[in-house]
Amino acid sequence: MVEELKKQYDESIDLILSECKEILSKVDPKETEELIELLCSSRRVFFVGVGRVLLSLEAMAKRLAHLGIETHVVGDINEPAMNEEDLLIVGSGSGESIIPVAIAKKAKEIGGKIVHIGSNPDSTIAKLADLQVRIPAATKLHLPDEYISKQPLTSLFEQCLMIYGDALAALIIRKKGIDVKSLWDTHANLE
Amino acid sequence: MVEELKKQYDESIDLILSECKEILSKVDPKETEELIELLCSSRRVFFVGVGRVLLSLEAMAKRLAHLGIETHVVGDINEPAMNEEDLLIVGSGSGESIIPVAIAKKAKEIGGKIVHIGSNPDSTIAKLADLQVRIPAATKLHLPDEYISKQPLTSLFEQCLMIYGDALAALIIRKKGIDVKSLWDTHANLE
Amino acid sequence: MVEELKKQYDESIDLILSECKEILSKVDPKETEELIELLCSSRRVFFVGVGRVLLSLEAMAKRLAHLGIETHVVGDINEPAMNEEDLLIVGSGSGESIIPVAIAKKAKEIGGKIVHIGSNPDSTIAKLADLQVRIPAATKLHLPDEYISKQPLTSLFEQCLMIYGDALAALIIRKKGIDVKSLWDTHANLE
Amino acid sequence: MVEELKKQYDESIDLILSECKEILSKVDPKETEELIELLCSSRRVFFVGVGRVLLSLEAMAKRLAHLGIETHVVGDINEPAMNEEDLLIVGSGSGESIIPVAIAKKAKEIGGKIVHIGSNPDSTIAKLADLQVRIPAATKLHLPDEYISKQPLTSLFEQCLMIYGDALAALIIRKKGIDVKSLWDTHANLE
Repeated sequence: MVEELKKQYDESIDLILSECKEILSKVDPKETEELIELLCSSRRVFFVGVGRVLLSLEAMAKRLAHLGIETHVVGDINEPAMNEEDLLIVGSGSGESIIPVAIAKKAKEIGGKIVHIGSNPDSTIAKLADLQVRIPAATKLHLPDEYISKQPLTSLFEQCLMIYGDALAALIIRKKGIDVKSLWDTHANLE
Repeated sequence: MVEELKKQYDESIDLILSECKEILSKVDPKETEELIELLCSSRRVFFVGVGRVLLSLEAMAKRLAHLGIETHVVGDINEPAMNEEDLLIVGSGSGESIIPVAIAKKAKEIGGKIVHIGSNPDSTIAKLADLQVRIPAATKLHLPDEYISKQPLTSLFEQCLMIYGDALAALIIRKKGIDVKSLWDTHANLE
Repeated sequence: MVEELKKQYDESIDLILSECKEILSKVDPKETEELIELLCSSRRVFFVGVGRVLLSLEAMAKRLAHLGIETHVVGDINEPAMNEEDLLIVGSGSGESIIPVAIAKKAKEIGGKIVHIGSNPDSTIAKLADLQVRIPAATKLHLPDEYISKQPLTSLFEQCLMIYGDALAALIIRKKGIDVKSLWDTHANLE
Repeated sequence: MVEELKKQYDESIDLILSECKEILSKVDPKETEELIELLCSSRRVFFVGVGRVLLSLEAMAKRLAHLGIETHVVGDINEPAMNEEDLLIVGSGSGESIIPVAIAKKAKEIGGKIVHIGSNPDSTIAKLADLQVRIPAATKLHLPDEYISKQPLTSLFEQCLMIYGDALAALIIRKKGIDVKSLWDTHANLE
């Protein structure tokens, strides 16, 4: 019984990691480069998403804050006003999630920059965005170049988004020459 | 039927407002004065509480942020490290709530200032605090000077805390000569 | 100095409580009656709002959960699917806040009931709603019957919403004959 | 320039995925089996953690809710009381994080079951727990069998925790014979 479970567990871990590898290798490095430019040059970076996608974005926002980037999740208690020097990162696989669409429209009106991280290249949010970083993890629509995940719901997009955020952080650490040991100094200490 | 409900509604509103008036009139102005000093002189102000008490604290943190005070709720995505120039505001009627006690001990260790807003004058948190602002809304213990609320659970403390926060904001607006109309400029606009 | 502060503090508390009394006395009891019916007959009750209005709604959702009503704040980790037996409570003074409007439209599509608690009687959300509970605390538009608050931003609406929620809870406690002491049994105990 | 970034990006993704594979392969299947038993037999499952570890736990709690398990994150608006039929999942690499330690002690007092998911086998939380699921991602202490991550802070533990949660979900889906397509029906639809 434990042997059977071990086998299923190993298969599941292999599936997740190999699907993540497959999808993350397809992200266009030019998009990542442009995103890093925007993250490092904007006054403030706001994040919006829903569900587990939001959790992956929050992991990204938390790490980027440790690297000295001023990050805010839309809805946070201390959320300030956005202006045209700021960046909004919208995470949404389909590019059609209700709250992200509504917030992206508002950010556009304000005049800030918008980056969409999603899988669908042709969506309401993609059209509003200054840059799309495409993580091509298929969900409901199936484009010729999309890998169709064997995992439930949009798990693959959420996993890729969390790992992509940590790869971004690694690239920024290298670019800025940040001493990794110093990161504990900016980390929340009331926990 | 609507008449009966209207009567009960009016009684309920009267009870809430008269209990709030009674309790809030007992807050020692010296404690409020000292709290305002600390709020205006600290580098950052952190807030910790649980349940509906936390919601009232968050309302306070949000408004104080509009007034130019850097506020953080413990656990927020962009929570920075606390240091000895910072202030922790702990909201807890009993002064014994588990998470607030644990966080207050940690803040003490770090060397920051601690303010306890609570009803019980003799509690674990009160002893750790540099200042207690006492809002004497009885919950479970009954001191001679405590009013015993007719409302369920700790509703009265939570209501008083929210209103106290808004009175604090009004005092700070007057002290700093802030133009109230300008507050819309610092208010979150992605909503 | 403390005397001056005490005077300002008393004025501020008086202003808040008298404005709340003024506004809350104007709420139509028929609307409250209908809201109580919906709260007690719906399968699940969802809440949506932003900023400090959301905090007041969350205080309401938390207390109603203690009374045996299944409540969910939109965006919560364990948020289930809504269906046509469910109720969405939208808190928004203006009735035009972006996220509440977007969520109300979605709930309409799903076929659930919608209650708008707001001040503006003629807004996008008011038009979508099955019921409006009007708390006439003026914000930006000024209708003939609206009281114009002397407090900053939308403080008055937020205060009234929190107190209104507690009055609602008191009415439901009486209607259902709930033993107030039993409420500690359903209250979160991991804090 | 893009070529150099592409190289660094690929290295970073490879490092993350290979470290995750290494660590996740070391999890003892008996611990996973026992955890699945507890998840499927408990009345309610509560989750507590801090920072990015909490985000990974929330991703787990959200997915398990889709599978019909009643999950609650400590601090949520609709958090009910815990009792001895319930389970608390504590996520903490070191097993010494302040809030998780405090909540685990309280849960022990209440009489519920406690599972610690962490890396340190010999910690305050590990001693309180009925079961430890060990994800041996080294942080600060370095046991002979621990892999020392090349990633900053506790990134590796957080990544492993998210992926482990999704593997758990896959095992439960198989065990219960859940139709994956049906999961969209229980998924939040107000977003």
